[in-house]
Order: sequence, then structure tokens, then C-alpha cells
Amino acid sequence: MAAEAEQGFRPLDEASLVAYIKATPALASHLGGAAGLGSIEIKEVGDGNLNFVYIVKSTSGAIIIKQALPYVRCVGDSWPMTRERAYFEASTLREHGRLCPEHTPEVYHFDRAMSLMGMRYIEPPHIILRKGLIAGVEYPLLADHMSDYMAKTLFFTSLIYNNTTDHKQRVAQYCANVEMCRLTEQVVFSDPYRVSKFNRWTSPYLDKDAEAVREDDELKLEVAELKSMFIERAQALIHGDLHTGSIMVTPDSTQVIDPEFGFYGPMGFDIGAFLGNLILAYYSQNGHADQANDRKAYKKWILKTIEESWNLFQKKFVELWNKHKEGNGEAYLPDIYNSSDLLSLAQKKYMTNLFHDSLGFGSAKMIRRIVGIAHVEDLESIKDASKRAECERAALNCAKMLLKGRRQFETIEQVIEHIQSFDRE
Amino acid sequence: MAAEAEQGFRPLDEASLVAYIKATPALASHLGGAAGLGSIEIKEVGDGNLNFVYIVKSTSGAIIIKQALPYVRCVGDSWPMTRERAYFEASTLREHGRLCPEHTPEVYHFDRAMSLMGMRYIEPPHIILRKGLIAGVEYPLLADHMSDYMAKTLFFTSLIYNNTTDHKQRVAQYCANVEMCRLTEQVVFSDPYRVSKFNRWTSPYLDKDAEAVREDDELKLEVAELKSMFIERAQALIHGDLHTGSIMVTPDSTQVIDPEFGFYGPMGFDIGAFLGNLILAYYSQNGHADQANDRKAYKKWILKTIEESWNLFQKKFVELWNKHKEGNGEAYLPDIYNSSDLLSLAQKKYMTNLFHDSLGFGSAKMIRRIVGIAHVEDLESIKDASKRAECERAALNCAKMLLKGRRQFETIEQVIEHIQSFDRE
Ligand SMILES: Nc1ncnc2c1ncn2[C@@H]1O[C@H](COP(=O)(O)OP(=O)(O)O)[C@@H](O)[C@H]1O
Ligand SMILES: Nc1ncnc2c1ncn2[C@@H]1O[C@H](COP(=O)(O)OP(=O)(O)O)[C@@H](O)[C@H]1O
Ligand SMILES: [Mg+2]
Ligand SMILES: [Mg+2]
Ligand SMILES: [Mg+2]
Ligand SMILES: [Mg+2]
Ligand SMILES: [Mg+2]
Repeated sequence: MAAEAEQGFRPLDEASLVAYIKATPALASHLGGAAGLGSIEIKEVGDGNLNFVYIVKSTSGAIIIKQALPYVRCVGDSWPMTRERAYFEASTLREHGRLCPEHTPEVYHFDRAMSLMGMRYIEPPHIILRKGLIAGVEYPLLADHMSDYMAKTLFFTSLIYNNTTDHKQRVAQYCANVEMCRLTEQVVFSDPYRVSKFNRWTSPYLDKDAEAVREDDELKLEVAELKSMFIERAQALIHGDLHTGSIMVTPDSTQVIDPEFGFYGPMGFDIGAFLGNLILAYYSQNGHADQANDRKAYKKWILKTIEESWNLFQKKFVELWNKHKEGNGEAYLPDIYNSSDLLSLAQKKYMTNLFHDSLGFGSAKMIRRIVGIAHVEDLESIKDASKRAECERAALNCAKMLLKGRRQFETIEQVIEHIQSFDRE
Repeated sequence: MAAEAEQGFRPLDEASLVAYIKATPALASHLGGAAGLGSIEIKEVGDGNLNFVYIVKSTSGAIIIKQALPYVRCVGDSWPMTRERAYFEASTLREHGRLCPEHTPEVYHFDRAMSLMGMRYIEPPHIILRKGLIAGVEYPLLADHMSDYMAKTLFFTSLIYNNTTDHKQRVAQYCANVEMCRLTEQVVFSDPYRVSKFNRWTSPYLDKDAEAVREDDELKLEVAELKSMFIERAQALIHGDLHTGSIMVTPDSTQVIDPEFGFYGPMGFDIGAFLGNLILAYYSQNGHADQANDRKAYKKWILKTIEESWNLFQKKFVELWNKHKEGNGEAYLPDIYNSSDLLSLAQKKYMTNLFHDSLGFGSAKMIRRIVGIAHVEDLESIKDASKRAECERAALNCAKMLLKGRRQFETIEQVIEHIQSFDRE
């Protein structure tokens, strides 16, 4: 980072934030300008692990301010982390917003020196999807919306749509978000497969299971391939952290936030993150079932959502491909893939590979949430440790076999069956 | 390119070259300084398609000067091409020279504004390998040397040896060599599979064969995967144009020149280029056979060289891996791949994938030399068109099946058998 940027930086608190907003028309204008700024209210709501997030309200509006500090928030300054992540978050949010405004909050302002972004306030009753999944709330449009978001952001940043010159220029730009990539490499693809002081699991119940992960040679061979693909393969501008904690929902609306891990990577990493976290939500339901609600209907809804998310994604992605097949995309030139039969074979091959990548990455994300550093609230909130361990073991076994055997799956329906087969109610 | 660089540029001729050298100590010093520069002799020897190459000799030394003009030399200024290729050539040559000085000429001087490089003169009796292959000369150390070059340059620029931060920084730098990549995309992965005014073949003999390539759906599906891999996968700093015209040899020495297509791409593209061009040399031999020399022994030597090149490459690459397994490479961390059994399984998997990639890319390079824009002298120099077509058809059929069936091959010996099976003497 330029020395200049270092110099311009100061962490804001609630008082200095007000002054900052007053001095920044792009922010002040969303709060009613000078008039509205009299009665400003600020609330810090960052429940994430990394950054500070403020809701700023005036009588005539509300905005979100997010600032990155040069360390991991939940750990403190003993774990330094580049503030440049804010730049990549704002860039990815703007690009994804351009491609899919329906499901991406607008960025009002970005200050690189301050690692500070102002964006649209995603107002209540929006909540974080993960919370809704824990509460057992159905979101009938979730699969439709997320398949839309994934199809558009991934298709339009891929070589099926773009020429190589534009693609490589953007790839180069996002190579600089390497610190965030390295964090993923460590926590998703490395630590769960070795002894690491960061790892934890529901002990003593899962001691043997965690050890088995570290000693599963076949699993580790497959994970090596996924890890290399994650680093080497610049397939599309991915969100990079598309779990259910990065999605805010109501029954009518779905908004994707927090793409600070954004870079040009394999599409399957995003799709897998979303599906894998839904599968974790599924396995956590047995732990949330009670007299009043056995969660059986809800589990069915989750499975249906997994199924529809993939099937709709596939459908929409291929529709975009067909719509733009005469465009500037370098990967499938229209005078080579020149019959609808051939194009549809090419699409089938592409989608099958993407399906297998997604299952691989999704499983890796599940495994790391059970035996790695950062767990998910879906499972963590199950108070009874033995019950939690049972849910986690089912999820872990499902994921291990899915990762190793992913190339044997042809349809998402087969995956659904696989998921159910590990669920001992 | 910076306007500054544009301004500093002028194409040199023999006269202005002398003045340039006199003003450039890094060049003059190799020619004996002021004393030696009295009796300078200059000869333009560029037999390549793209650039101008001068041998500059004084009484006390000789150097090579290579300059890129902003167009394709063999076509003229109707086909513009960035002079920045010279920068990537010098960068790749320096990096490969650092990693494998035995087989890479030293760069004495690089002037980015002038797109001009001074380098070691690879003196006679070195000749271009392709010429030696046409003449039927055996190079007993070729496989040893080329496996050395490929193992070192590819291993040491991969994630098996490097950390992700260094890797991505270099990937980003080489993304800017995109014009050269696009040329490869067009001539290797696109034009042969569509009607293009640039394509040519030995007509009318191969008219049906060229058409069959354009109508082979299975082939085109596989080529799409290779093309995407070529663009998306930043596996190592590859030479990018490693055919037998980019290699200068004597029976004792092997020197790799001309990496102006260098970028972070799939390793198999380099290995395939070398092997694929040896296979083309093999199929051309029937066209060079005469009363005096039936070329049968020579063909055996080529096959042995193909076999040894891969087997030695594999051996050396894995040796480097074992030697550096405790290093900083991100891809296979020692505390995960922590037993020699597991590491050796991982290596086996990696090398098998690399083998298949190499066969795929090698075949694609063969195909384009027969039905695409730029042919190889090995075949072009066969005067009798019907005889040439026969050699070409055998090579083409071999390549098509190798490309489509590459994943069925487990050893290079099986590939050798496959090559021989298409050779009707
Ligand atoms: N645009 C927004 N509108 C409303 N709430 C938001 C918005 N962005 C973030 N939040 C809230 O702040 C929390 C943390 O934001 P997030 O971007 O996930 O930060 P982190 O990078 O630290 O994980 C979210 O879980 C959400 O509750
Ligand atoms: N370092 C060198 N020493 C001796 N001859 C060289 C050297 N570099 C290039 N040449 C000669 O010049 C020719 C063209 O060089 P090359 O780098 O392949 O140019 P191009 O990029 O135009 O293909 C080579 O085939 C070789 O004969
Ligand atoms: Mg978050
Ligand atoms: Mg975040
Ligand atoms: Mg050349
Ligand atoms: Mg040697
Ligand atoms: Mg060249």
C-alpha cells in the first residue's frame, strides 16, 4: 500500500464518523444533507469476524459505513491483515452490482486511504440468512435469487462472455488481493488437514473424526487439487466468501454483502460455498428440533432449495450463454461451436465440470467449519455438545465422501439423496 | 505502453546499431570495448517470423541484438503486434536463465523503450534444432538437457516451490503479455477448427482432412477445455513457444531462445510443444528418406528422445520436489503431505495430470502446424506434395486421437506405440 494511503488512514469512532460523513457529500446526501445531519444516530453492528460496520441514521435516511482496520477484528492486532481488502470489497461489490443490481447493495462512496466504504443500508426486516436458517424460516425466492446472482456475476466475468484482454487485465488487478486468498488457503485447504493450534472441534466427541480427516490420504490428495485450482485458475470474479452469513434476506429480497475475498478464481468456489453452507444448515436442524417443531418440513425445504439453486443456476447460466453466444467471449467462438447440438454438448461438459468443482469446494468448506478454526452458528448454537457432535459428524462424513466421490455425481438430485443418507434422525 | 517508451523507439538498421552499441557499455564490453569496436561486422539473421536478429562481431567477441518492431515481421505492418513482447522475452529469459543457466543464453542488456535486447551469441556449430532434425542429426544429450530445462524452469516457478504472494505478483506482471497469448489462442486453439483465411494445408490432398478437423465435434469439445486451461491456469512461468525452432543445439549443448510468449500458464503447454514438435519431426522423416538414408535408425532415435524427454523430465521434476519438499511452496505443505507414501501418491497424481495436459497441448500444436497458419519446415521442406500430405495425414490422425484419448495413456511408452501405429512406411 502506498505510504500516502497509510498516512491518510485513521480508525473512525462514532464521533469522528459524523464529522467524516458531514464532509463527504456522497454520504451526506443519503442522509438528507445538512438538514438531516442534525439528528444523526450511529450503531456499530459488525457481527462479522473482520471489520467494523456502522448503521448511520438520520431523520430522512440511513446508510451503512464499513471500515477495515489493519488486523482481524475478532482476534485483535496480534493477527494483522491488510486494509486493502476494503478496496477489493468495494471493487467486487461495484462490479457485481453492475451485473446484478437486484441482489447487491449500492456502493455510495469508497475511500481507499481510509479503507472505508459507504453503502446502501439493507433495512429490516432483512436479516442474515444464516440466522433465518437457524430460526427455521423459509425463503421461497432464495434459490431463484441466488441462482440469479451466481449466474450473472459468474457468467459475465468469465471468458465465455469476455475477451482475453479484458479478462487478464482484471485478473492482474485482483491478484493483489492475495492476503485474503492466503487466508482462505490456510483455513479451508490446509489447517483442517494438519495439526494446527487454530483448529477446534466438539471435543471429545469428534477427536477421532478430526484425526481421521488428518489421516485420510485419499481426501488430502483431492484437497491438493482443489487448493491448486483455487490459486491457479482465474475463471471468473468470484465473491470468495459466499456463505449464508454473507447474504441478507426477507421472504421477498436477497442481498449479497461482504465480498472482501473477491478475486478471479474458480466459479465452483462460490457455488460450493453457498450449497455447502445450506447443507450445514440442513444437518444442524436435528439439533434445533423440539416438541413444537420437529424441523422435518424445514429440512425438506432446505433440500429443495439446494436442488433448485443448482438447477436454476445451471439453467440461467446456460440461458445467458445462449443469449450471448454471438458476443465477444473468447472461450467458445461462434464459428467453431457452430451448431446448436455442438454448443449444447459444450455447455453440458462445462456444467458437469463446474458441478464437480462446486461439490468439491462445497465439501471442503463444510469440513473446515467442523474441524477448522471458524465454525458456523447453525451448529455452534446447538447447546448440547453430544447432540451437536452427532449433527457435525453426519455433515463431516457426508462432506468427506462427497469431496472424494464428487465426479460420480451427475445430478443435484443424487447429491440430495447422498445428503439424506447420512442423516440419522 | 507509456508514451515515453513510444517516443524513445526507433527501428535500428546496421549503421545505427553500431552507434547504439558504442553508446551502451553493457554491449560494447562484450565486443572488446573501444578497441574492438573499430572493426565491427553486422549480419541480420532473423529467420523467425516476428523479429529482427543481428549477429554483431568484433575482433574480440560477438553478441546477438534482437529488436521487436511493432508488427509481425513476416507479414509486415498490416499485422500490428505490441513491441512489449520484447520486455516479456527479456524477463522470461532472465528468469529462466537464473533457474537454468546451462540452457539459457545470458541477457546482457535490455532497453524497453527500444524493445531491444543484447544477449549471448550462441556460436557455431550450434544450429536450430529443427534444422538438425531435418538433416537427420542425432543429439545424444537433447533429452537430458531439455528435461533439465523444463524441470527447472517449471518447477521453480510453480506453487510447489513458491508461496502464493510471490506467485500472484508474477502472474499479475505477465498478464500484460496478453497480446502474445491472444495470438496463440487464435492460431493454436481457434483457427484450425473454423474456416479462416489464414489456414492452409497441402491441397487438394488434405482438403477432406482439414474439413474433418473443423467438423470433429468431439475434438472441438476437448480443444475448448485446453483453450480455457491455457488462458485461465497460471501454473508456472512457461516459455510459451517451445518448439524445435526455439532451441539451438550441438551434440554437447542445448540452448533455449525466444521466450517472447512467456507468461504464467499451464506447464503442459511447454512440454507438449517440445514433444509435439518432435513427433512432427518423426512423421516428416519418411519424406526425407532416400537411397542413401532410409531414416529408420533416425526415427528410432527421435522416438527414444521423446520417451526419454518425458521420463527424465518426470524424474527430475519429482527429484526437485523431494529436495524442496520442506520449503515455502504453498501447494503441498509438508505437515499435510507428511509421509513419503502420501507425498509419492500426490506426485503420481500431479504427474499424471501433467502428462495428460502435455499430450493434449502437444497434439493441438501438431494439428495447427498441419491445417493452420504457420507450418513447420520439417514438413514444408518435403517437395513432393503427395508424399508430404501422406506424412501430414499420419501426424494429423495421430494428434487427433491423442488429443481426444489423452486420458487413456498412462506412460510415454504407450504414446510411442500410438505414434508408430499411424506410421505407414
Ligand atoms: N449493507 C448493509 N445493510 C445492513 N446491514 C449490513 C450491511 N452490511 C453489513 N451489515 C451488517 O453488518 C454485519 C457485518 O457485515 P460484514 O460485511 O459481513 O462484515 P465482516 O466483513 O466483518 O464479516 C452483517 O452481518 C450485517 O448484519
Ligand atoms: N542468442 C543467439 N545466438 C545465435 N543465434 C541466435 C540467437 N538468438 C537468435 N538467433 C538466431 O536468430 C533466429 C531468430 O531468432 P528468434 O529469437 O527465434 O526470433 P523470432 O522471435 O523472430 O522467431 C534464430 O532462429 C537463430 O538462428
Ligand atoms: Mg461477513
Ligand atoms: Mg467479511
Ligand atoms: Mg523464433
Ligand atoms: Mg544435466
Ligand atoms: Mg519468437
